[in-house]
Amino acid sequence: MRYLDKISDPADLRQLSERELTLLAGEVRETILSCVSETGGHLAASLGTVELTVALHSVLDSPRDRVVWDVGHQCYAHKLLTGRRDRFGTIRQYGGLSGFPNRDESPHDVIGTGHASTSISYGLGLVEAQRLAREGDGNVVCVLGDGALTGGVAFEALNQAGHLRTPLVVVINDNEMSIRPNVGALQLYLNRIRLDPTLTRLREDLEHGVAKIPAIGRQAYRLGKDVKGSMKAFLVPGMLFEELGFAYIGVVDGHDMHALRESIRQAIDTRRPVVVHVKTIKGKGYEPAEARPDAFHGTGPFNIGNGERKAPAVGTTYTEAFGEALVRLAECDERIVAITAAMTQGTGLEAFERRFPDRFYDVGIAEEHAAVFAAGLAIGGMRPVVALYSTFLQRAFDMLMQDVGLQGLPVTFAVDRAGLVGDDGPTHHGGFDLSFLRVIPGMTVMAPSSQEELQRMLATALTLDGPAAVRYPRGLAAPFSPLPEIEPVALGRGVVLQEGVDVALVGVGTGVGLAREAAELLAAEGVTPTVVDARFVKPLDTELLQRLAAGHGRIVTVEENTLAGGFGSAVLEAVGGATEVVRLGLPDAFVPHGDRARVLADLGLTAQAVALAARSQTPTLTHVE
Amino acid sequence: MRYLDKISDPADLRQLSERELTLLAGEVRETILSCVSETGGHLAASLGTVELTVALHSVLDSPRDRVVWDVGHQCYAHKLLTGRRDRFGTIRQYGGLSGFPNRDESPHDVIGTGHASTSISYGLGLVEAQRLAREGDGNVVCVLGDGALTGGVAFEALNQAGHLRTPLVVVINDNEMSIRPNVGALQLYLNRIRLDPTLTRLREDLEHGVAKIPAIGRQAYRLGKDVKGSMKAFLVPGMLFEELGFAYIGVVDGHDMHALRESIRQAIDTRRPVVVHVKTIKGKGYEPAEARPDAFHGTGPFNIGNGERKAPAVGTTYTEAFGEALVRLAECDERIVAITAAMTQGTGLEAFERRFPDRFYDVGIAEEHAAVFAAGLAIGGMRPVVALYSTFLQRAFDMLMQDVGLQGLPVTFAVDRAGLVGDDGPTHHGGFDLSFLRVIPGMTVMAPSSQEELQRMLATALTLDGPAAVRYPRGLAAPFSPLPEIEPVALGRGVVLQEGVDVALVGVGTGVGLAREAAELLAAEGVTPTVVDARFVKPLDTELLQRLAAGHGRIVTVEENTLAGGFGSAVLEAVGGATEVVRLGLPDAFVPHGDRARVLADLGLTAQAVALAARSQTPTLTHVE
Repeated sequence: MRYLDKISDPADLRQLSERELTLLAGEVRETILSCVSETGGHLAASLGTVELTVALHSVLDSPRDRVVWDVGHQCYAHKLLTGRRDRFGTIRQYGGLSGFPNRDESPHDVIGTGHASTSISYGLGLVEAQRLAREGDGNVVCVLGDGALTGGVAFEALNQAGHLRTPLVVVINDNEMSIRPNVGALQLYLNRIRLDPTLTRLREDLEHGVAKIPAIGRQAYRLGKDVKGSMKAFLVPGMLFEELGFAYIGVVDGHDMHALRESIRQAIDTRRPVVVHVKTIKGKGYEPAEARPDAFHGTGPFNIGNGERKAPAVGTTYTEAFGEALVRLAECDERIVAITAAMTQGTGLEAFERRFPDRFYDVGIAEEHAAVFAAGLAIGGMRPVVALYSTFLQRAFDMLMQDVGLQGLPVTFAVDRAGLVGDDGPTHHGGFDLSFLRVIPGMTVMAPSSQEELQRMLATALTLDGPAAVRYPRGLAAPFSPLPEIEPVALGRGVVLQEGVDVALVGVGTGVGLAREAAELLAAEGVTPTVVDARFVKPLDTELLQRLAAGHGRIVTVEENTLAGGFGSAVLEAVGGATEVVRLGLPDAFVPHGDRARVLADLGLTAQAVALAARSQTPTLTHVE
Repeated sequence: MRYLDKISDPADLRQLSERELTLLAGEVRETILSCVSETGGHLAASLGTVELTVALHSVLDSPRDRVVWDVGHQCYAHKLLTGRRDRFGTIRQYGGLSGFPNRDESPHDVIGTGHASTSISYGLGLVEAQRLAREGDGNVVCVLGDGALTGGVAFEALNQAGHLRTPLVVVINDNEMSIRPNVGALQLYLNRIRLDPTLTRLREDLEHGVAKIPAIGRQAYRLGKDVKGSMKAFLVPGMLFEELGFAYIGVVDGHDMHALRESIRQAIDTRRPVVVHVKTIKGKGYEPAEARPDAFHGTGPFNIGNGERKAPAVGTTYTEAFGEALVRLAECDERIVAITAAMTQGTGLEAFERRFPDRFYDVGIAEEHAAVFAAGLAIGGMRPVVALYSTFLQRAFDMLMQDVGLQGLPVTFAVDRAGLVGDDGPTHHGGFDLSFLRVIPGMTVMAPSSQEELQRMLATALTLDGPAAVRYPRGLAAPFSPLPEIEPVALGRGVVLQEGVDVALVGVGTGVGLAREAAELLAAEGVTPTVVDARFVKPLDTELLQRLAAGHGRIVTVEENTLAGGFGSAVLEAVGGATEVVRLGLPDAFVPHGDRARVLADLGLTAQAVALAARSQTPTLTHVE
């Protein structure tokens, strides 16, 4: 019987010796590997933190003590050790376990996560709440990657924690990667202070040497604290954290159970803010993942023997079409530069980076900075394209409004993963962008119905004098033939795909496909609706919409975006009252994870539903949710 | 003739000697003081940076060289020296100069600002654009306060700049204040490294001493760069910046023209990222402002002799009503804690801080962290109230969505300065919050029509199990009598203020007052509309709205929020099609600065316009902009 089979609660770990914990870690690693090879999932991060997770739960007493996992990619070992072993095979599947910590799943999941850099803020709130409520004395440990540390909110939290001197343990899981190798001065800094025996010896020598200088010894004594602070800067590798009021413990080998447990105990005992700097290897223990951790960050099912994908992707994703078009457009326009926030591969910018290394910027997990940096580049005459996932673009909302929108700057936002993303669930669905983007005055908002349209809309955005966003979905799309020339589309104009009578189906983005399919269903019944690809959510083609309103008894809008304030609402604003408007889209709710088609069917966002909305004699008043 | 009268362009400064520049600075200070005492404005920050501004423009060659002012409060001297002396008296007045840098005003205003912590990102973009375009070789200098440095985006930018090694000068204007005394570990750090002659001498001694230790000398030579890095940590006060890849120059006396000019020249010559740490005194040169810089941060007209306000405020603002209610509610509920982001006074939390110092948190300029910290407190059983200005709440949009909304946590957002703020203009207007807040699933969104209603809505928010926002305007409101008991209002229910016929006027927030006034105007003509205070934007009182739709030929909605996706759109979503809906609100545009009533009249958001929309036989189809 495996040790793992005896663990139904973290408390069970305290029965095991350190040797047994190490064996347990091996079992956990094997379980994650074999399971994710079947289901797909976030492999590399979870493999890298197996020993850390076992060490934390063997030293801590969860849920009295609380572990806050930043982002949450790395939570698989945590799930296995906190009573979810039996359901682990369902991870990220429809109705199964979430791929991220989730408060509804377990009391050991302190907070649901998915977006980076927030764990220190949460942790600080948890400790302060204990103090104020005079209730509970649990330890709080935040675990965040060195990549997540570059997000500004992490720094904001360090700044307050160091000031309050709240007892809080921040474990920096330093794997030199966020999803791909990290960038930034902070990373260079961490590189400098990593285990370096010669440097460590030198520090020790110097510590003795300095004490021997008589003049300095005296002054040091007199100046007290200030000098001690300065001395530390020389003697302690984690001075950046010390300067922010944190004690520093490190660098700890993140695959050495004993070292991990000792340093966690030591950190807790300090009773003040403390950073534990742990060095781990992303993908640890599985050679293909160690060799290519970015390929195994999020993966589909794969063959354990050789690491190859079981069902390799066929077709061209919107992401690839975007990347291809951007390279082509940049060939002809030297002003085009590309910016990503730690998502070069995810946003399809690898070819751009290879072709134009000088015009490519990975700013790290820093969406706010990405937007303002782009604004600065635009003032300087460049044509920056910022490629982000829809859900992470939310981080930059104020910058879109103030620094790009209000300044009227030609910055293009390539908004990937718009609509439902599927397995990653509500922290990663991009179901709100049409609503929040169209609030920004002067922002052009487009959604393509095909990869060709995406390429043309990107070209359109790059011709504009102001800000623009193009939002498009995750995953494969229909076969795609690159256009010989990428022509812009007409600004603010929709396209009538089929002229019909009685009812107009107006789709945007993936909604156009649903409208087309619905028209086919209706054709079989002898009904011929008008079918429109709106293309633009802003500026809206009000002329076309008013014509549709005048000529049709009903307009059905279809979008993969929340119905609250989305495309359908924009149509209502334009023609509400002139005809009946029935809106189909995502509900005003957080949508769970699972296979995209299945979740959409559950939500009633299907061609059948569109057809039903078109022919129903008594549709719901305004929308179907 | 004053020196100032001869300056029509920064280039003119280069004709002056350092002594003359110092005299000029005195004239600038006097001009700012006398002008702001008449018009009101941001006084203390601008007085503190007079010498710095003169020094910068005398050394630099603007606009070839570019100065990026963070936030922009401190730009008054810059405006006086860049060709806007004659119009300076119009500052912040309707049709006059903006109180912030503004790209439309001058080529010397590189970027329009108003929100903090973005200058380094802009600066980095500007320098990179020069490099890529192989065009221009101007220097870029960002000036930001130590308060702005606590905003996460500033750190994100430091991280990239230090890595790219882009030549960029970052002047930290260290006045130990953002608007009130700063908080955070970074502030403590800056305090430690400020001018300390003893410590400086010690460093020099040590530098010689260490070289004399033979063993270390040898190793240091062998280890090269690593040791030099470590040595610096001991010898250089600005190690935190050094560790992020910046050179550090400081601490410079920010009122010493010669020292300033020398250090700016030196910084430019480094041709790499460099921090110049300048110590200034907020309010410098005007005793009342030096003594109470927070009172003179933004001020109305005042008497120069004694610093007293010319027209002291009469009445009770919504801000005060909020602060009063929060203290009363917190007396009865120990779980209530208050969080502000460097805006204790602005958000009315001074009394709360005095009464409950232990339950009060000023997190610095860090809205993202404020929201997640509140989420952590809520998980720990507290009832956090986060008080922010509407425009700054935009910074936390993703946290409202992911960390509060998706987690379903009982965090209350007190959203001050909603709607138009007047003199501060488009960077400070709060015209978008109803639109972006109602996109968040499960968020309760309220807007009071009076201070009493605000107090009751605050109480309502604190009874909920999920997130809530109450948004209310700046400035004085009608006379106010505190309620003996603060009773919650009914969740999701509007109030019919007057039953009428034909048309229903449905207001929210300040829109209710307009609807009431319009009803009076209509009464004079014999028309009796139904008048409704919607109270809730989410959840909307759909039952009431459907009843109104059934009984009235027209609903007129009134809100002080953008018409794009705002309250009126929510009403359209609920009853569009069942009756005609005419929406009045702010246009889908950035609204300029100026007296609030005058700007609202320009925008057509008046009782007269509401009355017109009510009685018009042929109203515009959907809205009046």
